[in-house]
Amino acid sequence: MEVINNLLNYDSLKIVQNNEMFAFSLDSVLLPNFVTLNKNIDSILDIGCGNAPIPLILSTKTSANIIGVEYQSQVYELAKKTIKLNQLEKRIKIINQDINEWYQSVESDTFDVITCNPPYFKVNKKNHFNDSDYKTIARHEVKLNLEQLFKISRKLLKNGGVIAIVHRPERLVEIITEMRKNNIEPKKIRFVYPKMNREANTLLIEGVKNGNPGINILPPLYAHLDNGEYSEEVKTYFKNK
Amino acid sequence: MEVINNLLNYDSLKIVQNNEMFAFSLDSVLLPNFVTLNKNIDSILDIGCGNAPIPLILSTKTSANIIGVEYQSQVYELAKKTIKLNQLEKRIKIINQDINEWYQSVESDTFDVITCNPPYFKVNKKNHFNDSDYKTIARHEVKLNLEQLFKISRKLLKNGGVIAIVHRPERLVEIITEMRKNNIEPKKIRFVYPKMNREANTLLIEGVKNGNPGINILPPLYAHLDNGEYSEEVKTYFKNK
Repeated sequence: MEVINNLLNYDSLKIVQNNEMFAFSLDSVLLPNFVTLNKNIDSILDIGCGNAPIPLILSTKTSANIIGVEYQSQVYELAKKTIKLNQLEKRIKIINQDINEWYQSVESDTFDVITCNPPYFKVNKKNHFNDSDYKTIARHEVKLNLEQLFKISRKLLKNGGVIAIVHRPERLVEIITEMRKNNIEPKKIRFVYPKMNREANTLLIEGVKNGNPGINILPPLYAHLDNGEYSEEVKTYFKNK
Repeated sequence: MEVINNLLNYDSLKIVQNNEMFAFSLDSVLLPNFVTLNKNIDSILDIGCGNAPIPLILSTKTSANIIGVEYQSQVYELAKKTIKLNQLEKRIKIINQDINEWYQSVESDTFDVITCNPPYFKVNKKNHFNDSDYKTIARHEVKLNLEQLFKISRKLLKNGGVIAIVHRPERLVEIITEMRKNNIEPKKIRFVYPKMNREANTLLIEGVKNGNPGINILPPLYAHLDNGEYSEEVKTYFKNK
């Protein structure tokens, strides 16, 4: 069933979801609050935008034009409805195409910023997926893997442009390797821990096209307090600014 | 002036230092408390051992034989005195040689564990160092850089053996790149933060020779409380077990 929800506690943002599909996750809230945005940015690309939570939150933080690309037509329809509902059609454009095809038609050095909440899980030959299933595509690298993501970013980012992604920490080494293969220098990392004294379960990482070596490790972000509530910092993300 | 100090609050360990040179740092205490040690380990190499704080602490945690290699003869003498003072001559051997020469004489696949607190700073051609100065050698990559360190480790580690180092977080990407070039897979990281809400200033990283991809990010370690005291966890490192 299709429903309209508040984008968490963002009072003024609504998001269209389908309960039979999947709800957007905390990861989609963390990423637009992590990526470096400055005043000179005028174009952002969100790869695999789903029902558009990242473009929505970015629209509150920047006046740049935002393009979201979403492969799955059912999910694309939700994103379109979400954008219309929030009257953001002039600033956010959603495209229903495979990013691996779409990017070939785009000029190189086009975007200041790319964001992506990609599928987290590798596909190995033993897996037998129904690769038209929306959950499979969102979670497993059947349509987009790290190699493709950074190859696309290498082309589409302007010189000095940034790509920020959210992923699982266990893929850190592979992410760094693929970034560097594509002349994207990792510059900023933040690890998210479910609570104190636990291993990190989420990685936020940003790279700069043709950037100089040298990376900053930001303070840890704890998602929850010991009592299970969201931490103070995460709560601030849910307040519209 | 040469003095004998307790190895922090390790009651039973003494370390010989020279006030005109440099004191061992917290980093040398963090590393032996980070590296993975299991019961099957029988040989450890500490590269650039200084006055031997890392071998000393490791001797309380394992019954393995430990070799420390130290290039600078004055520092080597301090290490020798330290080992004698603690009556550890049977378990810890200190060698006064350039590691880049020494390792060529050693059989490959010899060590279960390598530890290293290497120089943190790159040397660029503009620097004019007195490269016989002990502080320069300890701090700048004049005698040992990351490329050399992991090339040496690749040869000397047994299959499945681990190398753990302490370094600056800004060198993370380079460390990972050099490890992988030498078939050492980064498997475990811990970032050390000076206190809450600050960026990390120390990196603890461990790799496994011919290990499988996949890394764990351990809980953050805070060195100090807001009042400047060592954190509870760091305090436990200073108690002899």
